[in-house]
Amino acid sequence: MSDYFVDVPLRWSDMDAYGHVNNVQFLRLLEDARVVAFSDWFGQDRSLVDEGVLVARHEIEYLAPLTFRQAPVRIGMWTMRITPASFDVGYEVREPAGSDRTPDTVYARAETTLVLYDFETARPRRMAPHVKDNLLSFGGGEVPFRWRRR
Amino acid sequence: MSDYFVDVPLRWSDMDAYGHVNNVQFLRLLEDARVVAFSDWFGQDRSLVDEGVLVARHEIEYLAPLTFRQAPVRIGMWTMRITPASFDVGYEVREPAGSDRTPDTVYARAETTLVLYDFETARPRRMAPHVKDNLLSFGGGEVPFRWRRR
Amino acid sequence: MSDYFVDVPLRWSDMDAYGHVNNVQFLRLLEDARVVAFSDWFGQDRSLVDEGVLVARHEIEYLAPLTFRQAPVRIGMWTMRITPASFDVGYEVREPAGSDRTPDTVYARAETTLVLYDFETARPRRMAPHVKDNLLSFGGGEVPFRWRRR
Amino acid sequence: MSDYFVDVPLRWSDMDAYGHVNNVQFLRLLEDARVVAFSDWFGQDRSLVDEGVLVARHEIEYLAPLTFRQAPVRIGMWTMRITPASFDVGYEVREPAGSDRTPDTVYARAETTLVLYDFETARPRRMAPHVKDNLLSFGGGEVPFRWRRR
Repeated sequence: MSDYFVDVPLRWSDMDAYGHVNNVQFLRLLEDARVVAFSDWFGQDRSLVDEGVLVARHEIEYLAPLTFRQAPVRIGMWTMRITPASFDVGYEVREPAGSDRTPDTVYARAETTLVLYDFETARPRRMAPHVKDNLLSFGGGEVPFRWRRR
Repeated sequence: MSDYFVDVPLRWSDMDAYGHVNNVQFLRLLEDARVVAFSDWFGQDRSLVDEGVLVARHEIEYLAPLTFRQAPVRIGMWTMRITPASFDVGYEVREPAGSDRTPDTVYARAETTLVLYDFETARPRRMAPHVKDNLLSFGGGEVPFRWRRR
Repeated sequence: MSDYFVDVPLRWSDMDAYGHVNNVQFLRLLEDARVVAFSDWFGQDRSLVDEGVLVARHEIEYLAPLTFRQAPVRIGMWTMRITPASFDVGYEVREPAGSDRTPDTVYARAETTLVLYDFETARPRRMAPHVKDNLLSFGGGEVPFRWRRR
Repeated sequence: MSDYFVDVPLRWSDMDAYGHVNNVQFLRLLEDARVVAFSDWFGQDRSLVDEGVLVARHEIEYLAPLTFRQAPVRIGMWTMRITPASFDVGYEVREPAGSDRTPDTVYARAETTLVLYDFETARPRRMAPHVKDNLLSFGGGEVPFRWRRR
């Protein structure tokens, strides 16, 4: 895992009729985190972040219930399996270390496979070398899933 | 795969700024399909469907872009790995066979792990025998994921 | 009020932590109803429905709580105040007359002001005569708001 | 208008297929602002904020298109028409004065009518004197709607 994280605010409406942040909304929080991370990781280079990256796959495990509060959740993020045309992002959604709630609680772990795509030619495209270098510098290990099927 | 399916309507707002049904919204469509399926599968027995089932895990692959239309998408569903306190659901989001769009297109495949839970004691609970029988009658094989990590 | 209506399905996720369809989601249901109505009212003439209509204003009153069920709600719709470049739509969100719930319950009343817009020139645009004729044929009276400010 | 405001973060998913923050999502932003405001205005007194306030009415006008950015929008808020069992909130969604976008742009103006409600007895309830005093201290004038129907 890299040290990189994004603090993502919740919305009251993220809760469902059970009074917990809905399982689908966790994916929405990950989307918000990616927007910030890709901006941080690639700066003004919009070739990656804009319209050239497709989500090909998600895997997520829910580990503890989360209820709305005004304080954001912390989403640790790192890269994995960088290939010429794709990469994976790992996530850990957790309570910040200094929180006045139960610190370090892990609410969910997840990973996303992203594919670089050229919308004009409608084909996968190759990663520029400096993009690969950036992604490598945020590299981390496998997501420690508990229930992954094998 | 069982023959069971649910036709789930899209909403215009399921599309994101790229003009496609957003990857997160696919999980929302699966939630809608589960609500219908659990009602069909368990009828008036609300012990399973109501507050006694937690989502523990999702895995999803996106195979073709989907744009909004008034016609619903068809979501095939089946059960897998039934244990005393949990079961998995497999899904295939596809174009119906007789559609005037490209018939049989598979937009996504997914699976969800569900855990039976007793909210009063805050502990997992055991499946009643008739519930297990019902789930078994909708049993099917493994989801043919392309990119599952091993 | 015209006799026109659209039956709009709910989603389980339309409910909020209070267990009712959230007040904001009612506007989402109205959006779904407009998509169907504009398609019905204008058929293949996409000049109105596609990218040429902006929402300028909403007003909505909530009259009875609504909880999720698989059956759709019925949304009566009619047009008002048709001008060369704008028109209003009135709505009544209600239980269908033959429902096995409390028939004819009115959950909400609302109206929306829509402005015709030319995205290429970034200016309002004028309504074609046949569009005006169509809109007039679905004309109705003022929304009977209880609490409108004057 | 009072000087009170809440800065509300956007989500990338607030944009619709037109690439603008969707008109319905503006109501979602107002909901987020109310959650923060009610907490600020009433502190630990949860009698108002928790389950005792119902939304009875919204009115909103859209004045300028808003696209996603990481910076929050500023929502000015004030109270109006305080009665023993209800009050209105006015809002102005705007670009902060010092923004590097077009400062002071007003994206939308809105108002919400809120009714105090006792969920146990299922009846409206009366406002405690200190709640009324708090609400009065954030009092402001009428929302300057352009298109309000009369």
